[in-house]
Amino acid sequence: MSRTAIIGLGLIGGSLARALKVAEPDHHITGFDPDARQGRMGLELGVIDAAADSAEGAVREADRVIVAVPVLHTAEALKSIRSALQTGAVITDVGSTKQSVLRDVESCFGELPANFVAAHPIAGTEKSGIAASKEGLFRDRRVVLTPHANQSASALAHIRAMWESLGCRVVEMDAARHDAIFAATSHLPHVLAYAFVDMLTRLDAADEIFPNAGGGFRDFTRIASSSPEMWHDIIRANGSEVTRLLEKQIGELQEMLDLMKQGQWDSLKARFDRARSAREKHLGQIE
Amino acid sequence: MSRTAIIGLGLIGGSLARALKVAEPDHHITGFDPDARQGRMGLELGVIDAAADSAEGAVREADRVIVAVPVLHTAEALKSIRSALQTGAVITDVGSTKQSVLRDVESCFGELPANFVAAHPIAGTEKSGIAASKEGLFRDRRVVLTPHANQSASALAHIRAMWESLGCRVVEMDAARHDAIFAATSHLPHVLAYAFVDMLTRLDAADEIFPNAGGGFRDFTRIASSSPEMWHDIIRANGSEVTRLLEKQIGELQEMLDLMKQGQWDSLKARFDRARSAREKHLGQIE
Repeated sequence: MSRTAIIGLGLIGGSLARALKVAEPDHHITGFDPDARQGRMGLELGVIDAAADSAEGAVREADRVIVAVPVLHTAEALKSIRSALQTGAVITDVGSTKQSVLRDVESCFGELPANFVAAHPIAGTEKSGIAASKEGLFRDRRVVLTPHANQSASALAHIRAMWESLGCRVVEMDAARHDAIFAATSHLPHVLAYAFVDMLTRLDAADEIFPNAGGGFRDFTRIASSSPEMWHDIIRANGSEVTRLLEKQIGELQEMLDLMKQGQWDSLKARFDRARSAREKHLGQIE
Repeated sequence: MSRTAIIGLGLIGGSLARALKVAEPDHHITGFDPDARQGRMGLELGVIDAAADSAEGAVREADRVIVAVPVLHTAEALKSIRSALQTGAVITDVGSTKQSVLRDVESCFGELPANFVAAHPIAGTEKSGIAASKEGLFRDRRVVLTPHANQSASALAHIRAMWESLGCRVVEMDAARHDAIFAATSHLPHVLAYAFVDMLTRLDAADEIFPNAGGGFRDFTRIASSSPEMWHDIIRANGSEVTRLLEKQIGELQEMLDLMKQGQWDSLKARFDRARSAREKHLGQIE
């Protein structure tokens, strides 16, 4: 392995470039982003060794290709590199939805290539763009790989080793399971946080509300500062799971509202208790 | 001023005792908590100078009395100290709801005493109890005072100066306005966070969900680790405002669900955008 191409120089692509430069100092990293400013900034920051003019140009000599674009741009990115890929190059991604990515890969190549490894690092911040990238973003984080039926064992082992070299704990699971779990832990909370802040902006007292927000508000709404484009893509790509859970969540809120209206405060408190106990029980597992 | 009594030795009462010890080293602080272990721990930690056996005993010689109990315990706490209060003692509280506290004070004393100052420090963590108390909890935080019709100007000035000596920014507003604003920034988010975690505990995949949660989940759900008793009290005490906002929030979520079901993804993204812009615009004001 000697040359890596990263397609998409956002927070994740940029942070991955930074981390790989440290873990593999002899490695050459070429980056491409449709927004040329991200490539120029990547060069200026020393995050990448070269900024390619096209996705095709980025991958031409690469033996490892990392697609790090918003998930609904996966198909387009793959199509733009398809004809330039080296035989034997390992291709991987970092998308938050795995069934949609595998569908796009299959549709682009006509089958799932043995050398494509679907990956999802459970890391990020609410910030976007290469300027926000950090070398240590992945350290001590979990990475989920979702191997497919045609998977090459050596390609899988290579991508596992890459993430482990960055200090990640790598787990494998089925893509459908992955999407169900992350709909619950990540995709739905983003919908809820955006919906909460959006509701506040439309209240009469909106201008008084924000200056009076404290630490609880800041943390609860942090993910509402995340990239709308990226999260639109994720939620749309995992639409059926997120829709199902959002319906459940609305049902639960309606139940709580009914308890409040009926003055059943002890029952409301019992639900608060159950939630707190569950969170506290699992807290050690939350990275 | 030389003797302070703190009724309720939880996170807020304990942190206030610690901060006052630093700001006013010559001051004597007597604490009381119905749970005698909190008083003993307060003594052991050096947070208070004396642990009283009763609320009455705590306030007998105090010229400043701070009631720091869950808001629905305010009436009971006031009744227990009423007969032992020194003439001229300044009484204040730290409750998250202000109309309910003022109602309880008025009902206990037959009128709103001139020396009662209603206060709400916008500070806290999801932790409970004196063991979690921190001297710096209030530094650089906002404190809202809600003066009432019978308010003594000197009592108000005294409590303002006390909080300012701890590094707080003190603002004044009407109690009803306070309750409407904090229903939005604080009370409703707690309901939403509890409801979200509670829903997860009842999913089939609950045991797989928590280990796969990342930083977004951790922050979004942090307030669901808060004291259920305390938040039951707050939400019940401010029930009409919280109910009204929860209904609005359910409506907004239902609208988002409809957009998703109808495939109106651009409209969903526009709401994400609006929420993100509002949060980013106001971020500097969020403490």
